Amino acid sequence: MTTTTPSTTPGTTSSATATSRQWQLIARPVGEPKPTDVRLVEVSLPALADGEVRVANEFVSVDPYMRGRMNDTKSYVPPFGLGEAMTGGAVGRVVESRAEQLPVGTLVVHMLGWRDVAQGPASGFRAVPEVQRGGVAVPSSVHLGILGLTGQTAYAGLTAVGRLQPGEVVFVSGAAGAVGTAVGQVARLLGASRVVGSAGGPEKVARLRERFGFDAALDYKAAPVREQLPALVPDGVDVYFDNVGGDHLQAALDVMNRHGRLVLCGAISGYNASPSQPGPAGPDNLANAITRSLTLAGFTLGDFASLLPEATAKLAAWFDQGKLQHEETVVDGVENTFEAFMAMMRGGNTGKMVVRVG
Amino acid sequence: MTTTTPSTTPGTTSSATATSRQWQLIARPVGEPKPTDVRLVEVSLPALADGEVRVANEFVSVDPYMRGRMNDTKSYVPPFGLGEAMTGGAVGRVVESRAEQLPVGTLVVHMLGWRDVAQGPASGFRAVPEVQRGGVAVPSSVHLGILGLTGQTAYAGLTAVGRLQPGEVVFVSGAAGAVGTAVGQVARLLGASRVVGSAGGPEKVARLRERFGFDAALDYKAAPVREQLPALVPDGVDVYFDNVGGDHLQAALDVMNRHGRLVLCGAISGYNASPSQPGPAGPDNLANAITRSLTLAGFTLGDFASLLPEATAKLAAWFDQGKLQHEETVVDGVENTFEAFMAMMRGGNTGKMVVRVG
Repeated sequence: MTTTTPSTTPGTTSSATATSRQWQLIARPVGEPKPTDVRLVEVSLPALADGEVRVANEFVSVDPYMRGRMNDTKSYVPPFGLGEAMTGGAVGRVVESRAEQLPVGTLVVHMLGWRDVAQGPASGFRAVPEVQRGGVAVPSSVHLGILGLTGQTAYAGLTAVGRLQPGEVVFVSGAAGAVGTAVGQVARLLGASRVVGSAGGPEKVARLRERFGFDAALDYKAAPVREQLPALVPDGVDVYFDNVGGDHLQAALDVMNRHGRLVLCGAISGYNASPSQPGPAGPDNLANAITRSLTLAGFTLGDFASLLPEATAKLAAWFDQGKLQHEETVVDGVENTFEAFMAMMRGGNTGKMVVRVG
Repeated sequence: MTTTTPSTTPGTTSSATATSRQWQLIARPVGEPKPTDVRLVEVSLPALADGEVRVANEFVSVDPYMRGRMNDTKSYVPPFGLGEAMTGGAVGRVVESRAEQLPVGTLVVHMLGWRDVAQGPASGFRAVPEVQRGGVAVPSSVHLGILGLTGQTAYAGLTAVGRLQPGEVVFVSGAAGAVGTAVGQVARLLGASRVVGSAGGPEKVARLRERFGFDAALDYKAAPVREQLPALVPDGVDVYFDNVGGDHLQAALDVMNRHGRLVLCGAISGYNASPSQPGPAGPDNLANAITRSLTLAGFTLGDFASLLPEATAKLAAWFDQGKLQHEETVVDGVENTFEAFMAMMRGGNTGKMVVRVG
């Protein structure tokens, strides 16, 4: 198998022996996914065609939206095919190249995750810089997190969707997750006057305040969100960034200020819903949207491609200046990707959940 | 009592004898309002102060939003005070004036409804034209309907909130109501390719198609909206104009196209909710907003004051050209205003519900 050790010198890997270990979906989960819904297989890779590259992944991403792709329903990304390799964000290094623009050794981000070795046309891979901070190399997983889709999602959601203005109050659910920790910090950097988060358990709550600069945080496992939230936002909420849905969305609707914006990014509380275990009920107070002129806007990053250069530049500058904390939960081994995904779905991570490959 | 007959010659009504019959809220309704929650009283009016006018109302408006004002909750308009006259849209004629800009005989719209005679500072009254069509005088109630708040709400909701584009599909709930009939027609005039409505009962459904030009309509009393709607919108829905909430909003979320807009104008299905009779559950499919990048925007006309000149001009031109049908349900007598309000809340009207006063 192709080595996954970062290489800075051109390699001479033999195409003939290249294989890839990759995860396939073999049954559509009902409710919470089971180990029998997926399998890890080793496949032989064909020799590269002209214009293609082979990439040894360093890290692959597991994200809540992937649960939706396991269903056979219309969405912004097509469902995973049964018996086909699953996909997702990944960062790796070119180990063999038949594309001039991506020579061997180039660090790239791409969507052929859930596997250790990826290959395909160079257009599917994007070169990213080696990142240092304070003279120390930062693991390439940062390109899956605060400098990647995660940070970009937070930035686009707060600016283009949430139209956050300096001096406004922000509440974010799932605040200890990858997107949530980014949202809290970016909101502050954009001038929010108060940033409040929700997370599960006292350790995460403490971490939000101590490491990520939240003004206040609540533990949604300790008492209903609807009971806890009002005391934390005495001046109401102007922008609510929703990663959870259900009880959190309902609690936010209670405290939104007139002309508030609710940025609907995720609804993890309902992702494992099934006929026998329905997801949470819809909010019973949606009529507040009328009486307070609220806007609820669902979005995905794909809607904001034109914003990405700005987002990437801002995030990189803030990161370089030490203004953005980046926390990861790292699981080792491509063979543990499914387990990492399930742990993330259950909230077993703070910050970005990634799998170190190879 | 001051005469309510339209007068075109300056009157000489005596201030000393002027009285007004007006409706007061005396108890906050729990659930459906009861006749004992209100009372009709006759009050003496003081002599006009400088800058004031006295207006004999010709028509007063009853609207769904008034139910919310009967509750003591934060909203975009303050609640009705207990023991005070209720207010609302009205059109009438100046019968006594101490304000130069509004001489006796002027037709005016204003917010001192729920009574037969109104008076106050001239700044609270706005002169409106006498309307004719085909050489025939149109009753002044048109200024409460298609040329008033109703038509303006439809126009603002479809344009500024819904961002309707030519060629798009529109679905409107409560389509046989005042706002609904306006929305269907204005949507067509703005270039919608298909206009579908929901109403209660076969007569209203037929009327939507035959009189108001809807392409299709469903009877929400005949079967669940969620079951009926998909067949009527084979190409999905781009703009949903919601007057109802509950099951209608949920059904719309099922069929919205990517980047669709849901204009939240009313939620009459939940207006009479009480602790013992909760309103409809929230939609169980709000996560579609994320996967399809939908925007749900609540609004009230007050947010769009700057749009009113444009709206008024367009509506007047369309009306003059015979392109807007205007239907009313007229109840006679200020003493029947509460009954008319309750009938409207139960859907006992097609088009605008008004009370003819005097």
